Amino acid sequence: MIELSLIGIGTGNPDHLTRQAMRALNAADLILIPRKGASKADLAELRRAIVAEVVTNPATRIAEFDLPVRDESVADYRQRVDDWHDAIAAVWAQTIADHLGAAGRVALLVWGDPSLYDSTLRIAARLHPAPRLEVVPGITSIQALTAAHAIPLNEINGPVMVTTGRRLRDEGFPPGTDTCVVMLDGECSFRHLSPEGLHIWWAGFAGMPEQITDHGPLAEAGPRIIETRAQARADHGWIMDIYLLRRA
Amino acid sequence: MIELSLIGIGTGNPDHLTRQAMRALNAADLILIPRKGASKADLAELRRAIVAEVVTNPATRIAEFDLPVRDESVADYRQRVDDWHDAIAAVWAQTIADHLGAAGRVALLVWGDPSLYDSTLRIAARLHPAPRLEVVPGITSIQALTAAHAIPLNEINGPVMVTTGRRLRDEGFPPGTDTCVVMLDGECSFRHLSPEGLHIWWAGFAGMPEQITDHGPLAEAGPRIIETRAQARADHGWIMDIYLLRRA
Repeated sequence: MIELSLIGIGTGNPDHLTRQAMRALNAADLILIPRKGASKADLAELRRAIVAEVVTNPATRIAEFDLPVRDESVADYRQRVDDWHDAIAAVWAQTIADHLGAAGRVALLVWGDPSLYDSTLRIAARLHPAPRLEVVPGITSIQALTAAHAIPLNEINGPVMVTTGRRLRDEGFPPGTDTCVVMLDGECSFRHLSPEGLHIWWAGFAGMPEQITDHGPLAEAGPRIIETRAQARADHGWIMDIYLLRRA
Repeated sequence: MIELSLIGIGTGNPDHLTRQAMRALNAADLILIPRKGASKADLAELRRAIVAEVVTNPATRIAEFDLPVRDESVADYRQRVDDWHDAIAAVWAQTIADHLGAAGRVALLVWGDPSLYDSTLRIAARLHPAPRLEVVPGITSIQALTAAHAIPLNEINGPVMVTTGRRLRDEGFPPGTDTCVVMLDGECSFRHLSPEGLHIWWAGFAGMPEQITDHGPLAEAGPRIIETRAQARADHGWIMDIYLLRRA
């Protein structure tokens, strides 16, 4: 039987690793590292560095594999993603079979936490026979954002909506809350909001050495952040960012 | 100048500690540990155990202090909490002055993450002169819950509301989302919802050795959880629990 550990590694600061994550990595017979062409956004280098620094078990093997490319010719979004996850699961299965056979402990290093806007659990559910699954929680970019600004996520006893850039753009500030955290936003969707009464706390590369932050009333900070983000993306070749919006 | 590190320690599993947390604890001149009478819910014993296991710096001192009691005779809830936070800040200031004087590094071990339903940042804001503040992110009970069940927090690109038991009771299932996480719920407030179409994933003592979990359609799992929770609370003398509700 295959035991599969999905290990949250935090957001790019190797010091986000928990002791549980370090133990799980060292308990693995095989660690899988995905490669995404020449893109820096695959963070293969970061995963290699973490493994090199943390794994002391000489029996642990490392296998890199090329992440399948999503077939953009499939018109339906859900179908496109489903097909892609099927393809990734097939590559995992093949890589595991090649390096380990039918039994052993496999580990995958998951950016942030395996539960939050991540496909790894859904891909793992496609494996047959089903592996025994372990999830090791990791620091999410939400915690990295609030730590960077030293701010509470919620108001006293207040609710918080975690949402995506696309929803913010299409649906506006979410109902039922004065605080929302926006993730997966490739286009600064806060620009579609009426900024009055809104405050933003933003971070690019939250938790990483490249971390940049800004905050202020959305009317003032928003245009600055759009510019900073574009520049940082040009400088680094990619960017990952997150922000919190709070109604005054 | 005082440098104050608020260190997220995760949810009671010492292996939730990050390397950053371990470094910050060892960089401290003084670690403050609050005591809450004989209550097990203050987790002073857990904090002592973490410090004993992790802190190797012989120069690091430990100071315990008794947490002031909230004055329940103050009628207004906000005022009552404000007064209480003032009193805690005063005890921090006194304990720091007694053990360290006017300069040095102070660390506080914060359950979960300092940003999420925690007062430590708000109490720190009351200190004068203002300390230099550092927040070390920690695993939250949300991550501990989803890891325990090996489930994603969100549906694909879907939003998630994080809210409190009181709000769930008073306002029902939150608007604008099919997923909510409920924290700070002393009374199984899901019992006030119409259970049709709702699924619950519940954990008591999420991440701790005492962890107990249950999940299922709310109509079936809800009554079981109410019973399990009451029994666990009786057995342990306290309980901390959290759950995720998802609309089918």
